[in-house]
Formats: sequence, C-alpha cells, structure tokens
Amino acid sequence: MDVEKFHTGACPVARGLALVGDAWSMLILRNAGHGQTRFDQFRVGLDIAPNILARRLKALTASGLLEKRRYSERPPRDEYVITEAGRDFLPILQAIGAWGRRHNGGGELSYSVDVETGAPIEPVVIDRATGAPIGTRELRLVTPD
Amino acid sequence: MDVEKFHTGACPVARGLALVGDAWSMLILRNAGHGQTRFDQFRVGLDIAPNILARRLKALTASGLLEKRRYSERPPRDEYVITEAGRDFLPILQAIGAWGRRHNGGGELSYSVDVETGAPIEPVVIDRATGAPIGTRELRLVTPD
Repeated sequence: MDVEKFHTGACPVARGLALVGDAWSMLILRNAGHGQTRFDQFRVGLDIAPNILARRLKALTASGLLEKRRYSERPPRDEYVITEAGRDFLPILQAIGAWGRRHNGGGELSYSVDVETGAPIEPVVIDRATGAPIGTRELRLVTPD
Repeated sequence: MDVEKFHTGACPVARGLALVGDAWSMLILRNAGHGQTRFDQFRVGLDIAPNILARRLKALTASGLLEKRRYSERPPRDEYVITEAGRDFLPILQAIGAWGRRHNGGGELSYSVDVETGAPIEPVVIDRATGAPIGTRELRLVTPD
C-alpha cells in the first residue's frame, strides 16, 4: 500500500485507508473496541504473528487510533488503548460486518445486540442530510480540480 | 492477511475483510463504482503497478465483487464490471471517506453531492432497528460458542 500517496491525494476514502487500510489493522481496532489493550491479548485473540502485530500496533499508534500507555515500570510494559478517532471507526466495522454477513456469511456468526432493546443491530449507512440509505439516491462526485 | 482463517471464523467483520481486506481492493471498487471497468483505466486512475492490479482484479472477481466480461475478441480483452455485491460495498467506502475527512483531512478533498438536493452527503452508520447512530447506544457482542 502506497500510504504516502494516499495521504496526499484529494480522495477522502484514500485518506481514511492511509490510516487503517488493511485487514489486520481493522481487526486490531475491532478487538480494541471490545476492550483489549495488551500485546498478548491481541496476539492470542487474533492468532496473529508477533512481528506483524508489533508493526500494526506501531502504525495504529502513529496514526492516532491507539494510544500507548505504560502499565508496568518493572518490567517495562506498554498497553494500547483505543482513542476517540479509533472508536469513531467502529461503526464502519459494524457496516463491514453486516456486508460480510450478507455476502460471505455461511455458518453461525457472532452479532451485536442493542443492550436496551435486546435486538440485533442492523447497520446501514445513511446520508444524514436526506436520511436515505446511501446507494438509493443518485450521487455526483465533486473533485477539487 | 490470513484469508482462509478469516473465511471460516465466526466474526462477520473478518468475513467481510476476507473478500476485500486491503486498501487497493477498496480503491478498485471505488473506481469501479465510478464507472471504470478496464485494466488501463484502473492502472492510470489508481497509479498502481500492473502486477498488483492484476492480482487484485483476479481476487475481486473470484470473490464475486467484480465480473469479468470479454469486450473484444481480437485481440482478446476483458473488462471488470462491478457486481451487486461490489456495489453493496460502496456505502461503506463513503463512510470510510467521511471518517478519513474527519481524521486525516488536510487540504482540499473531493466529496459527493446528492444530485437532487445538490447538498454534500453526510454518511453515518445507523442501526436500522433503533435509528440511532452506531456508537451512541450500548452494544453487546453475542458469539456462537
């Protein structure tokens, strides 16, 4: 992924993907959203190779989606706490989950319920301005040049 | 990315990312959603290396998000047309774009307007069941085991 190019382009989608443009990073955020903070929690929870996990945690911290906090001085140990920007990505993961369920959803899958109503959530991306689900009304792209 | 593992797990987010879990694949879908279909259109539009593009087009076709169609017999030439499943991902890209604008949005960026109202769209992921933006109400994860 040519992250530098994505960072400087005019497309906000690429700008977003420059911060979190691969599956592992998104799954780390997913687990961080469920309260995981420590290297070994992520490593076991994701069954991910330690070198890949270390690289992703570093990048997500540099991008401001996780924040490194020292939780032990002796031995020195850091944990990674999801930031507000990282938490702001979680609804997108719910939308990806709903899409994954529709298009690659064989077998029993996990799901999220609204604690108050007890009902499974049904994530849908709408345009706040019109209230309509995106994809149901015609759009036009406006570019700076 | 350990795509096989993602395909068989119980998490619908991983199921989705097994189909389109990297930045290039998402940007190819973005451009396909804007009407691009041909190898050279994607190559120039994305400024992507031909071998990487070929690999991603093959994977997206195998995943059913693009459909290969022969548009010339002599010389033999194929194009890649976005499928219904691929189109169903486009609202998620709009949500990623809105997030990218919020958290990595310096400079002038492109944006989408609603053709009828002329207003920029404001993508937000809601729970259709409650109508509330996801992240504003407490959720609980339910796993098969």
